[in-house]
Amino acid sequence: MSFLEKLSAASRAKDSLLCIGLDPDPALMPKVDIFSFNRAIIDATADLVCAYKPNLAFYEAMGIDGMRALAQTIEYIPKEIPVIGDAKRGDIGNTAQAYARALFDVWGFDAVTVNPYLGLDALEPFLERGDKGVFVLCRTSNPGSADFQSASLIKDADKKRGAPKPLYQWVALEVKERNVKGNAGLVVGATYPLDIKDIRRLCPDMPLLIPGVGAQGGDLASAVRFGLDRRGEGAIIAVSRQVLYASGGEDYARAARREAMKLRERINQYRSGARSSPE
Amino acid sequence: MSFLEKLSAASRAKDSLLCIGLDPDPALMPKVDIFSFNRAIIDATADLVCAYKPNLAFYEAMGIDGMRALAQTIEYIPKEIPVIGDAKRGDIGNTAQAYARALFDVWGFDAVTVNPYLGLDALEPFLERGDKGVFVLCRTSNPGSADFQSASLIKDADKKRGAPKPLYQWVALEVKERNVKGNAGLVVGATYPLDIKDIRRLCPDMPLLIPGVGAQGGDLASAVRFGLDRRGEGAIIAVSRQVLYASGGEDYARAARREAMKLRERINQYRSGARSSPE
Repeated sequence: MSFLEKLSAASRAKDSLLCIGLDPDPALMPKVDIFSFNRAIIDATADLVCAYKPNLAFYEAMGIDGMRALAQTIEYIPKEIPVIGDAKRGDIGNTAQAYARALFDVWGFDAVTVNPYLGLDALEPFLERGDKGVFVLCRTSNPGSADFQSASLIKDADKKRGAPKPLYQWVALEVKERNVKGNAGLVVGATYPLDIKDIRRLCPDMPLLIPGVGAQGGDLASAVRFGLDRRGEGAIIAVSRQVLYASGGEDYARAARREAMKLRERINQYRSGARSSPE
Repeated sequence: MSFLEKLSAASRAKDSLLCIGLDPDPALMPKVDIFSFNRAIIDATADLVCAYKPNLAFYEAMGIDGMRALAQTIEYIPKEIPVIGDAKRGDIGNTAQAYARALFDVWGFDAVTVNPYLGLDALEPFLERGDKGVFVLCRTSNPGSADFQSASLIKDADKKRGAPKPLYQWVALEVKERNVKGNAGLVVGATYPLDIKDIRRLCPDMPLLIPGVGAQGGDLASAVRFGLDRRGEGAIIAVSRQVLYASGGEDYARAARREAMKLRERINQYRSGARSSPE
């Protein structure tokens, strides 16, 4: 089963577009080891999510012990729920091959996030893995994402597409063109809802991984409304801190479950709203 | 001592601009464990280099054992030689903080490579570490680097710099502007010598990390000539496969030493040529 089939099956079975980011941060967590923390979150939310998304930075920041906790976490996640490795890797040819091997074959992620700055050949080792998912950073959720992503680009070599476009739109179009195995998606921040709308228009069928609601302040209603594809799917709403640290105390797992239920429900309300009143 | 001071001291002591990329690849290596391989390479070349540069991908591709070998390798490198972690990381605020912690404090790298696609706020957690070095990807050495890096960009918000410029030049200028701690450098591929020239003109004082000679076919003479700063320093020539796999056999360390000596010498010849005939 490919990543997208697995994602779709999980999303339908749980009636959910919610993806929980497993980003353990010792400064925000109760005093408990990383794997125990993740296990409690997974136990409390596995029936509510379409995917989990560990961001590797938080594990790497804890050294080899952190990496071991990541391996345990991936192993522990129920097999029917896809795991997206939020790695944002990008490197040249033979090195990108090594990263693809690391993420897909060693860690065993079902999908990963990658960075397009190095160009399309650097994405190839990921895109050629038809069984796996590849989310290319397009318009990221942070305030500085406009610095380069929103600047207007002219591609002289390729005049057929006409006028200058923001870099993030070029990235979306180029990835769409290279998506021969049908396994590519894009990362677009909920903090820029009108850009989600643009990207969805340019790429009607690609799955969008949408972080930025919750702690970052993105608007959930617009993220869902603009992010959905024509089947009312294809938007993965990724939330981390708002769920993991809903309570700072001992009852963190219960609090996480409450927050995840609320989010899934709100997402589904916006979803049926979008279905009944299409633009 | 800051990274740049350490780099300069090592470079002068060894009379070398050569940086060896420690990228162990089981497909190319003789049958020996990763740390033993690296140790033999370090023993054979430590008097010839200004820095070592492990690319994390090759270690991650070997899982926890690979990460342990990386830790041993960093520990083993003589303390006077700076170690550049070729990680090409890039993520939003709190996550970039975690990566900076991982690379500088957990792994103990003296400098790292980072990816600018996410914008300047994503570089901040690295740039604010004045004791450490930060090489921002600018014009990478791979064939696809032109896809986005060479496209012309218009930054409407900032007309003072005039006409459209390639994305890589904008990145260079923005990093230069944010380089308040004086610890930033740029990654520019030897495969695009005229772009090295452009970047050196825009950023006369920033150190350039230059991969792409050797296996990738970049021209060493131009890389040195265009990459040097006004003091005849500031260019770090990074070579990996050409040195590590000079011989595929048991004599790999000896062969690596021969190749490293040849490279250092050729670099120094081009260097004195550049000094005696400035443009």
